[in-house]
Amino acid sequence: MPAQSFVLFGGTGNYPLAEAVARELGTELGSCHVEQFPDGETTVSLQHPVRGLDVFVIQPTAPSVNDHLMELLIFGDACRRAAANRVVAVIPYFGYARSDKRECRREPITASLVADLLQCAGIVHLILLDVHTPQTEGFFRGPVDQLTAVPELSRVLEETLPAETVVVSPDAGRVTMATEYARRLAFPLVVLHKRRESGTETEVTRVVGEVRGRPCLIIDDMISTGGTIAESARALAEAGARPGLIAAATHGLLLDGACDRMSAAGIERVYVTDSVAAPNRRCGHAEVVTVAPLLAAAVRLQLDGHAA
Amino acid sequence: MPAQSFVLFGGTGNYPLAEAVARELGTELGSCHVEQFPDGETTVSLQHPVRGLDVFVIQPTAPSVNDHLMELLIFGDACRRAAANRVVAVIPYFGYARSDKRECRREPITASLVADLLQCAGIVHLILLDVHTPQTEGFFRGPVDQLTAVPELSRVLEETLPAETVVVSPDAGRVTMATEYARRLAFPLVVLHKRRESGTETEVTRVVGEVRGRPCLIIDDMISTGGTIAESARALAEAGARPGLIAAATHGLLLDGACDRMSAAGIERVYVTDSVAAPNRRCGHAEVVTVAPLLAAAVRLQLDGHAA
Amino acid sequence: MPAQSFVLFGGTGNYPLAEAVARELGTELGSCHVEQFPDGETTVSLQHPVRGLDVFVIQPTAPSVNDHLMELLIFGDACRRAAANRVVAVIPYFGYARSDKRECRREPITASLVADLLQCAGIVHLILLDVHTPQTEGFFRGPVDQLTAVPELSRVLEETLPAETVVVSPDAGRVTMATEYARRLAFPLVVLHKRRESGTETEVTRVVGEVRGRPCLIIDDMISTGGTIAESARALAEAGARPGLIAAATHGLLLDGACDRMSAAGIERVYVTDSVAAPNRRCGHAEVVTVAPLLAAAVRLQLDGHAA
Amino acid sequence: MPAQSFVLFGGTGNYPLAEAVARELGTELGSCHVEQFPDGETTVSLQHPVRGLDVFVIQPTAPSVNDHLMELLIFGDACRRAAANRVVAVIPYFGYARSDKRECRREPITASLVADLLQCAGIVHLILLDVHTPQTEGFFRGPVDQLTAVPELSRVLEETLPAETVVVSPDAGRVTMATEYARRLAFPLVVLHKRRESGTETEVTRVVGEVRGRPCLIIDDMISTGGTIAESARALAEAGARPGLIAAATHGLLLDGACDRMSAAGIERVYVTDSVAAPNRRCGHAEVVTVAPLLAAAVRLQLDGHAA
Amino acid sequence: MPAQSFVLFGGTGNYPLAEAVARELGTELGSCHVEQFPDGETTVSLQHPVRGLDVFVIQPTAPSVNDHLMELLIFGDACRRAAANRVVAVIPYFGYARSDKRECRREPITASLVADLLQCAGIVHLILLDVHTPQTEGFFRGPVDQLTAVPELSRVLEETLPAETVVVSPDAGRVTMATEYARRLAFPLVVLHKRRESGTETEVTRVVGEVRGRPCLIIDDMISTGGTIAESARALAEAGARPGLIAAATHGLLLDGACDRMSAAGIERVYVTDSVAAPNRRCGHAEVVTVAPLLAAAVRLQLDGHAA
Amino acid sequence: MPAQSFVLFGGTGNYPLAEAVARELGTELGSCHVEQFPDGETTVSLQHPVRGLDVFVIQPTAPSVNDHLMELLIFGDACRRAAANRVVAVIPYFGYARSDKRECRREPITASLVADLLQCAGIVHLILLDVHTPQTEGFFRGPVDQLTAVPELSRVLEETLPAETVVVSPDAGRVTMATEYARRLAFPLVVLHKRRESGTETEVTRVVGEVRGRPCLIIDDMISTGGTIAESARALAEAGARPGLIAAATHGLLLDGACDRMSAAGIERVYVTDSVAAPNRRCGHAEVVTVAPLLAAAVRLQLDGHAA
Repeated sequence: MPAQSFVLFGGTGNYPLAEAVARELGTELGSCHVEQFPDGETTVSLQHPVRGLDVFVIQPTAPSVNDHLMELLIFGDACRRAAANRVVAVIPYFGYARSDKRECRREPITASLVADLLQCAGIVHLILLDVHTPQTEGFFRGPVDQLTAVPELSRVLEETLPAETVVVSPDAGRVTMATEYARRLAFPLVVLHKRRESGTETEVTRVVGEVRGRPCLIIDDMISTGGTIAESARALAEAGARPGLIAAATHGLLLDGACDRMSAAGIERVYVTDSVAAPNRRCGHAEVVTVAPLLAAAVRLQLDGHAA
Repeated sequence: MPAQSFVLFGGTGNYPLAEAVARELGTELGSCHVEQFPDGETTVSLQHPVRGLDVFVIQPTAPSVNDHLMELLIFGDACRRAAANRVVAVIPYFGYARSDKRECRREPITASLVADLLQCAGIVHLILLDVHTPQTEGFFRGPVDQLTAVPELSRVLEETLPAETVVVSPDAGRVTMATEYARRLAFPLVVLHKRRESGTETEVTRVVGEVRGRPCLIIDDMISTGGTIAESARALAEAGARPGLIAAATHGLLLDGACDRMSAAGIERVYVTDSVAAPNRRCGHAEVVTVAPLLAAAVRLQLDGHAA
Repeated sequence: MPAQSFVLFGGTGNYPLAEAVARELGTELGSCHVEQFPDGETTVSLQHPVRGLDVFVIQPTAPSVNDHLMELLIFGDACRRAAANRVVAVIPYFGYARSDKRECRREPITASLVADLLQCAGIVHLILLDVHTPQTEGFFRGPVDQLTAVPELSRVLEETLPAETVVVSPDAGRVTMATEYARRLAFPLVVLHKRRESGTETEVTRVVGEVRGRPCLIIDDMISTGGTIAESARALAEAGARPGLIAAATHGLLLDGACDRMSAAGIERVYVTDSVAAPNRRCGHAEVVTVAPLLAAAVRLQLDGHAA
Repeated sequence: MPAQSFVLFGGTGNYPLAEAVARELGTELGSCHVEQFPDGETTVSLQHPVRGLDVFVIQPTAPSVNDHLMELLIFGDACRRAAANRVVAVIPYFGYARSDKRECRREPITASLVADLLQCAGIVHLILLDVHTPQTEGFFRGPVDQLTAVPELSRVLEETLPAETVVVSPDAGRVTMATEYARRLAFPLVVLHKRRESGTETEVTRVVGEVRGRPCLIIDDMISTGGTIAESARALAEAGARPGLIAAATHGLLLDGACDRMSAAGIERVYVTDSVAAPNRRCGHAEVVTVAPLLAAAVRLQLDGHAA
Repeated sequence: MPAQSFVLFGGTGNYPLAEAVARELGTELGSCHVEQFPDGETTVSLQHPVRGLDVFVIQPTAPSVNDHLMELLIFGDACRRAAANRVVAVIPYFGYARSDKRECRREPITASLVADLLQCAGIVHLILLDVHTPQTEGFFRGPVDQLTAVPELSRVLEETLPAETVVVSPDAGRVTMATEYARRLAFPLVVLHKRRESGTETEVTRVVGEVRGRPCLIIDDMISTGGTIAESARALAEAGARPGLIAAATHGLLLDGACDRMSAAGIERVYVTDSVAAPNRRCGHAEVVTVAPLLAAAVRLQLDGHAA
Repeated sequence: MPAQSFVLFGGTGNYPLAEAVARELGTELGSCHVEQFPDGETTVSLQHPVRGLDVFVIQPTAPSVNDHLMELLIFGDACRRAAANRVVAVIPYFGYARSDKRECRREPITASLVADLLQCAGIVHLILLDVHTPQTEGFFRGPVDQLTAVPELSRVLEETLPAETVVVSPDAGRVTMATEYARRLAFPLVVLHKRRESGTETEVTRVVGEVRGRPCLIIDDMISTGGTIAESARALAEAGARPGLIAAATHGLLLDGACDRMSAAGIERVYVTDSVAAPNRRCGHAEVVTVAPLLAAAVRLQLDGHAA
């Protein structure tokens, strides 16, 4: 790998992760200075040269999402104006991904807008991780590398999960991801399905597959307020699942109250990655699996590809 | 409605539908000449003026999809160069909609590409009908009106479906549409779910909900080869559904063999719309519900909105 | 004014100002719902139709600047997708305006980036008020109406300022604005000028013009931390200005500590406009002059121009 | 030539030609899978990596022109999204080239539209061969290499044409090409010119130059239905040309009936290139000259240029 | 025609023509100030409002072509920034039109570049007159109205040309235009054709058609140095044409020496239009036919179309 | 430096400077042919290959500004179409830089327009020298290298200026540049400031700083008509400056009469660079400092950066 042909910058969204990616690549993060002025305006000043280099900016657009997104756009602008060869955004968590369609006529499609804003700021290539909707990629005109942390999480989970565990998809949208977990862990798949019973107003969660007396692993792409996981846990408990439920998700936003909410519903342990900053500080019993090697491999692939 | 401020053109994709829309609007299609030269090149010559007018081109990009798509793009180019105020494409069936994400790394996202091509040809607004994936809208930068034929089909179905019918979604992707049918028809919802049983290679279709002894309405957005409907029908039969299954879908492509394939699996009747040309010619027992009033209303809404 | 051809929306950046502009125009703000989700993502849902209408979104990108800017971009996206005729952003305070050039080689020009982002989100016209640098307008490709609150502030000031007052520009960059105040108030102009004396490292503020024993009005485009005003006040005091200095600026950001900082330097009263939200809550002795009529006139001009 | 820095793909438009170009370059075509679904939708799946590579897609947009054009656009999209360094389209026959201007006010300029569509799909460079109108190049913003097969065809023709042959341009538009043939073959040039005689409605073809008793070579850029060649042959026969006329054209579309039509008019032999697929299958007495070395040289020039 | 919905501006390229167009439309030119600074920089200041109006800028890009082109681009920029509804350039003479293709590999296609520059400056619609190559239109993405002065010139010519006149196209590129003259004047068509005789280096002009003893009208799109007309005149004289040749062309650039050059070759009279400024001052025996009514009709068509 | 990876072209704006830059880089200018046709149209024909190369075009857009600007745009077009890797414009003097904002509502911002035109012509990177307004950079989307000739001029000045000299900024806009001169020369800074005295209509130039009896160096970015320098000189003389004033500016346009005007006001010597062509021919006592090494270093930086 020609060390001189690229530079990695870490935004403030998850600087420790960026450092870990740099270590994996046997390099150091490019020196830069990100500052938020008293009036909240963000500025970026690059100390490391970028002229003619491939620049990778590692920045999840996790909360506070607007600040981190603007910072990323400003990074793009600074790199472009300083004559970077090309600017690649490594976005381990893509905020606004769930705003991928309109429910009503007069709403935004913010994920599509964000993809445009990134291009507008001079970013020409994205590296994404377990984005909520696969169609998101199509909002961007340039190349996108979509990564998944399922192998990373599965490797850790297979050492700890009891036999007879079933993998549970909390809804229809996660079946593809759950199937991949089930395949890797060689466990059966169960899908939760909310339906409104005829003649009533109450939604009932149907459990499709056998869970009675079995340990359950509920998977999701992200855990934000913990509401989906908690609701799933309750449905599994009612269906006779063995107590001591496990949850796994790539993105551990774990907003305030999320851990308590999940605990109260019977979740014993939570596995997430470090795609967003320091979730373990917020949730005592969360295990954090790093995606630094995964991101580093994606960066390396581009460098090799480019050199090839 | 100021008749002089707009003109409707019908492409060759479904000229009778375009005529019906014009009738609904109390107008006539603008005169134009679409020709395919001996070498297969398409040309469009507009006899009706478009200068300063809002132009609506009604053209499903149904098979032969590439010919119909190019014709639509050429319409766009001709209208733009002739100084149309704006060009709106009314695309009752949006071909390539299923190519909305990449399964592998080196594939196109053709639905996104097509959205770009339309803009590139000067088309600034889309009217779409029951597109396969709602995210498709986000591939287009300009305004999109997404219509659904579920109310139209439901109105016809509610007069013919027996009591006790259940609405069946053939897979997780159609649950939203099936829920809407169920709500309008006041029938319960059943979801089919394919799972690979642990330790085997065979996919088993799980029927989530009660179908034993009950009439079933299988819904989908489109019927192409009829394979999905046929497979669903067999799973329902195995689960004890009452014989005489009904299928309904917005887009009746009904490719060669589709009707036989569905019949052989126990489908007794098929309801589709006229979003694509003349499906009833191909499938003796298909009932065709027109979407002309629906499309006409969407056109009228734009004219009123614009005049307002 | 054809009330039906346009709609005004107020963002959360300064909703009371938007309401006041609507009142001036004899209309009401279009109903819309702006929400920030628990994870900080912003969404906008428009209740008022926009199809075919000219939409004006009133939103200063004052602190928290990134949230307000993203909200404005999302407004743009929602309006564009809902088929607005055109989207005009009324931005009484344009955040990032001071990032209008690079001091070093590897910095962004965020004001230029923001202009691009606005266009990228479908905004085609800007109404701005006393932007820090007049060149900012050139960053935007479309039409820009640049307004100034100097007449509004002057009208209030001329009733309260004592005779013999001099208008003070705190540095060379504000001379144009100060000259306009001086012309309207018929007071002489004084310019402060920081110079490093030969052979020293200390900057000395030179007072160009006579201030001894005279009341002074220090003007600026914005008061953020109050530092510039305080420094100017101290220089004027040293030069013998009459105690009881007055400051006037269009944008009263008045960040925490600003009022105390200015008071300590001898500023007795501060005049600002309501271009940013509710500064008077933060600064007891600040007088707030409304720019609602000014903005309303600019909106009206566009409607008349458009109808003409 | 650094074999690893580029990859050639062959579309279905003329796969054997693509293979021949690859052989000339001492390489193999990149593995890829082009499929047309039962509903006519095209998809492209690349097996060979393209990341960081210069990709050349060889695809004439010959009949069926819309299918081949969409396939090329889809290739562009797939390569761009898979992070190709740049995508070059090698289009030996550029369909729609004759739609290069409007005859009437409300027509498309499809050649210009196609140039835009190619750019829209991520194609940044074109290699073209004997395009109908030289201005076509100006429709594309990026670099274009215009090649001509006149030297290739001349080399074959000079070995077979009898002494005293004259080179015939069938109309004014081909004079430049005919002049080049005449120069290379050292034969005189004759131009056919259609004129409407004063007072009549009949067009008469004037033969400008001496053909009586002399062998004639009629040249053109393409032979589609054979109509132009047949008409020219009849005019030459009337003017006393020696029987046994020869025709040569770069693009041998040779649509159904073309060969019979030309034979009936006295054309004895036809020389075309392999720019479009397998014309010799359709026309017994057509000689096919390969342009593979010509295209290979153009590709090699780019690789060398790029490496230089 | 709603006088208040548009404004016409005249550039310095041909202000009298612009005035004449305004008179035809029953209006006056919008007041504006065009200035060239001592350093040659051009500026445009509009006194007439343009907000919300359709703006027509009448400016041939005749010599000095770069000054007139930049002035037109600057007009576009000023109108766009001042919120014109749309900016239409009326370019009676389109400079650089002959740079429509590349003769060699490393040349510009300036006509295509100019079309792009016009769009870049905010001009969205062109009105052109007898452009050298019809393909030029395809270089522009937006609507183009191509006008021809052949009817205007024919009307004048038919009153003065003697019986038995033949219409002469000076080369193959003007045959379409010459045919139109011949059709309108009901005279036969003669085409001049330059060929290099076999074995020589000298070009010989062949006269295709009968000219012996007949009066000749040589037509062309433009007369620049007069070289083409003079050369044609000599060939006609050699072929026995009756002395007293007439030339007609839309664009009378008539550069220094042009008139003498044509006179010396036997041209007795020259008919041109006023598409470029004041040619009659330069050429004593040139008759100038105005295109003001033609341009006015094209403007009126747009206004009506737009209002319709 | 890999000599084969780039080529430098010199436009006609300042060919000797381009030659000097080439010499500094140890190379020769690429052969090219720039021609102005009799009708004033410019054409560029490149003899040196550009395929795959980084192309640097050195062209100040000094008078005649429109011709030089169009020539530069045409260079861009020719290079892009000939498949240059990227086209960098080295513009030592950026014409229209002072049109960087609108004074009135209906004016252009020509500096912003020019930046767009350059991009439109395929130019992706700019190297600029002492542009009038630093914000100009933000008008361009791509990378810009802003150079300053202050060090070059200072090196020459420090050998000739007498002790006790003061550096004079002629107005507030040049203070940044003057400060840099003062810092490098270790002289004090004086600022001239025009103010309108209260109650009068006359502008008075205030001299901020001590000049009595001291030699003065008046600096500016450019000297066009010499008016600003002359006016400053008179103010300094009135303030008692020592006779024998010196002026220094990067860009010596030195229009007709400029030198006489400055001499008459007491300017004894003028220092300018060769950013524009041959100023010393026009002003006998002007000393010309070359910026060739400065521009060469900027080119070299890009080549190294790119190779890095």
